[in-house]
Amino acid sequence: MNEAVFPIADVQGVLDTRHIAINRAGIRAIRHPIKITDRDGSIQSAVATFDMHVTLPHQFKGVHMSRFVEILNNDDRVISVKSFESMVNDVVERLQAESGGIEMTFPYFIGKTAPVSGINSLLDYEVTFTGEMQKGIYQFVLKVVVPVTSLCPCSKQVSAYGAHNQRSHLSISVWTNSYIWIEELVGVAEDQASSQLYGLLKRSDEKYVTEKAYDNPKFVEDVVRDVAAVLNRDERVNAYVVESENFESIHNHSAYALVERNKLTDL
Amino acid sequence: MNEAVFPIADVQGVLDTRHIAINRAGIRAIRHPIKITDRDGSIQSAVATFDMHVTLPHQFKGVHMSRFVEILNNDDRVISVKSFESMVNDVVERLQAESGGIEMTFPYFIGKTAPVSGINSLLDYEVTFTGEMQKGIYQFVLKVVVPVTSLCPCSKQVSAYGAHNQRSHLSISVWTNSYIWIEELVGVAEDQASSQLYGLLKRSDEKYVTEKAYDNPKFVEDVVRDVAAVLNRDERVNAYVVESENFESIHNHSAYALVERNKLTDL
Amino acid sequence: MNEAVFPIADVQGVLDTRHIAINRAGIRAIRHPIKITDRDGSIQSAVATFDMHVTLPHQFKGVHMSRFVEILNNDDRVISVKSFESMVNDVVERLQAESGGIEMTFPYFIGKTAPVSGINSLLDYEVTFTGEMQKGIYQFVLKVVVPVTSLCPCSKQVSAYGAHNQRSHLSISVWTNSYIWIEELVGVAEDQASSQLYGLLKRSDEKYVTEKAYDNPKFVEDVVRDVAAVLNRDERVNAYVVESENFESIHNHSAYALVERNKLTDL
Amino acid sequence: MNEAVFPIADVQGVLDTRHIAINRAGIRAIRHPIKITDRDGSIQSAVATFDMHVTLPHQFKGVHMSRFVEILNNDDRVISVKSFESMVNDVVERLQAESGGIEMTFPYFIGKTAPVSGINSLLDYEVTFTGEMQKGIYQFVLKVVVPVTSLCPCSKQVSAYGAHNQRSHLSISVWTNSYIWIEELVGVAEDQASSQLYGLLKRSDEKYVTEKAYDNPKFVEDVVRDVAAVLNRDERVNAYVVESENFESIHNHSAYALVERNKLTDL
Repeated sequence: MNEAVFPIADVQGVLDTRHIAINRAGIRAIRHPIKITDRDGSIQSAVATFDMHVTLPHQFKGVHMSRFVEILNNDDRVISVKSFESMVNDVVERLQAESGGIEMTFPYFIGKTAPVSGINSLLDYEVTFTGEMQKGIYQFVLKVVVPVTSLCPCSKQVSAYGAHNQRSHLSISVWTNSYIWIEELVGVAEDQASSQLYGLLKRSDEKYVTEKAYDNPKFVEDVVRDVAAVLNRDERVNAYVVESENFESIHNHSAYALVERNKLTDL
Repeated sequence: MNEAVFPIADVQGVLDTRHIAINRAGIRAIRHPIKITDRDGSIQSAVATFDMHVTLPHQFKGVHMSRFVEILNNDDRVISVKSFESMVNDVVERLQAESGGIEMTFPYFIGKTAPVSGINSLLDYEVTFTGEMQKGIYQFVLKVVVPVTSLCPCSKQVSAYGAHNQRSHLSISVWTNSYIWIEELVGVAEDQASSQLYGLLKRSDEKYVTEKAYDNPKFVEDVVRDVAAVLNRDERVNAYVVESENFESIHNHSAYALVERNKLTDL
Repeated sequence: MNEAVFPIADVQGVLDTRHIAINRAGIRAIRHPIKITDRDGSIQSAVATFDMHVTLPHQFKGVHMSRFVEILNNDDRVISVKSFESMVNDVVERLQAESGGIEMTFPYFIGKTAPVSGINSLLDYEVTFTGEMQKGIYQFVLKVVVPVTSLCPCSKQVSAYGAHNQRSHLSISVWTNSYIWIEELVGVAEDQASSQLYGLLKRSDEKYVTEKAYDNPKFVEDVVRDVAAVLNRDERVNAYVVESENFESIHNHSAYALVERNKLTDL
Repeated sequence: MNEAVFPIADVQGVLDTRHIAINRAGIRAIRHPIKITDRDGSIQSAVATFDMHVTLPHQFKGVHMSRFVEILNNDDRVISVKSFESMVNDVVERLQAESGGIEMTFPYFIGKTAPVSGINSLLDYEVTFTGEMQKGIYQFVLKVVVPVTSLCPCSKQVSAYGAHNQRSHLSISVWTNSYIWIEELVGVAEDQASSQLYGLLKRSDEKYVTEKAYDNPKFVEDVVRDVAAVLNRDERVNAYVVESENFESIHNHSAYALVERNKLTDL
């Protein structure tokens, strides 16, 4: 079983003479089951899609791709925003690399309570953890894609009644100096939208969310600004990218806006 | 250049002894530029994705896949709902098959005039031609996917003001005994939606479409029924499938309905 | 909390006069966490995408879409090929429908052992359960999409050395009269491919799978026929559809073949 | 028809007091027909997907999204690598913005001649033009995604016969100081792969490409390095990103590598 007994050449290990270092070499689009701790301490199971990579110095021909897969298959740890760093560390150590990283995307569920009936249901969000270790310095980025309702202020103002509204994807990526939970970032997005979404709504709730969105019209530019304003006040956030894509109900294209800021460089 | 001079075996041509005929053998997901005649007689250029296949009798090992690609590359004809049959015929003849078919999907543009300002713009639709020749009998199916606005009657009725609305995909497939233009089928879909979409709207138009949708609330069930009622009256239509998927603005899932009817068998 | 105290109209419940019954009305593209029992009796967690629907008689205006979501959120059962029927039953009962069904798609993992080194790793498959209850009669379809290696017999025969090969998606759908495990159907697919895939391979394993594929060349037509031959002999299978899509390494399109058979009607 | 006659408020034009400038506000995922000049001077028709945006200073509430759509609909120009700048200029001028840009992605066809039989066919590539005008300075990026064959050196060396190979996407993005044609960049990619792809191959050609790939094994790291080496010598290129994603035929995941270089800063 031991590969030492097979006289098989290590093709990846030979010397390379092209003098071109590789910024990222690794594997992509591999799915693996994970366990994630949520804010309440309970554990959520999901299937994540991974992108794992290291830098490759110019003198080496190739990386041993199978080691990335070994890390996934040997690992039983419960992943959280806090513990993800150790997984990134493993990549750099097992691949004997100077730098490396992991991008892990997964569906995440949060239990929600309908605003009037109080009925409970789950809502799904797309979450990405990105961890990069560069020469010993770790950088973590948390990204959430939050589906929300947006209602157009222009449509409301110019129309005698009604206003076009639609589902939007409000995405927030944060570089932090201290931990922020997925649930907190989702909350920031949902609080700044015209209305939040729910899996399950009774008619009394449907009345509530319809009227709330109408009372709270926002352009795509308003939503990203209002989220940015909250992140500007949060001292745990060093930098952010806020995006909204509104799948317009009156057009066959999206309205889009993006605000980004690095607080460390703009002072 | 002639392959006759190469002593290369015809692996596909050998006898097969498993006694299993193949319903479809061919190529998929190949993109090729096409020219389509629209209702006005002008010609539209597009890139289509093709699925081309034939039946393979049990005694033959394989089909000559390259012949499908030759048909695409040797062809300069302008395609229309009417002329598509000759392309399907080519498949059956060139592959020396009893039966065969083509599925061709492409983006199609229709010039639209905004309802108040009169400003012009293009809107894109996804169109699929499916032609099957089975033992000499030709069957053609035209499918259009039409993006529209749907506004929820329940939300309108229960709410003091506003109503949730969203983009929907209203799909119609028709089996016909006489030609129907893409533009006609798109028109059926747009007429039965809460409102149609436009690429370009001025504020006066935005007022119009917002109020029109509010005046015209429809459940996903209403939309497919109203389209079905129109197709029931159209004597060129032998059979149809009507579907609507509403990308709900208050949920992270779709509402969906489907009505299908074969007039030839339900009499 | 009780909606009875809100004087809100039941818009879906009113009488419809268009005399058009709806074949499918329901929800689509909703994601929900599930637990699946595998063949060994252990439980696998996944996130599934659901399509849930019922028939709607012509006299009713709409279905109560929220009930589908309630079924998902109130449900804690562990799903298996065997227990899925009860979930479909719930849909028909809760929606008070004559007929209805569920389509549930999820990633499923099977632990695999590398052929020479014996190293273990997981491989992911796409699985779909489709259950339809029509006037009290239940029909279940199990579909697996199995990624495999295919190696071209023509390329091998005409070339002095080497042979083009590629990843293929081999899909099997079965209508059964008795239970078949996901693992069994995946096994049928992997046994008939040029070679099966693994998450993790050492160099000794890579030698094995490379040589195995070269020793075992198959056209897309061969693969679907060889799978069909196995299903023909399996008395639990009433009907099947077998498809293979080969993402050709020498072209930018796929080779494709499909065999389908209904044993109940072809006798 | 003139909107001046409608007393409709300009909601986008009001003053904003949040003091947050927006980096990108615009439209996304809009499809529009285009005409592209290829290297030979002939004109190719395609349908492109556009992302168009401008910066929005902190004191303005919103951008007039319809102006982006007007630019697309009023435009009849034939686009080329050279003329794209004028379209980007239009965006900045019509939106009265300091900075702005366009990202345009489209399928592009190049006629290819099979290596032995000389038979002709088209092959499709995904091309993206990105043009950004920032305070009067124009930056253009040309990206091509080229499907190629990669054959694994390790698999070849360890195996007694055969070698796993697969389709790969080799992507090149270049920032240039002088024009480079799409065809040139595609050529760089195809020359450095194990073998290039063709729409149409006769058996004599299939022998050629199979043997060529076997004679020319390359890891994902080799391919990106060999492309980088060519771009390092091309004085028209100021900076580049080279990526390859190999859809491994023995795994259900991709191998991936990336090299990037900015010649202007690394001197």
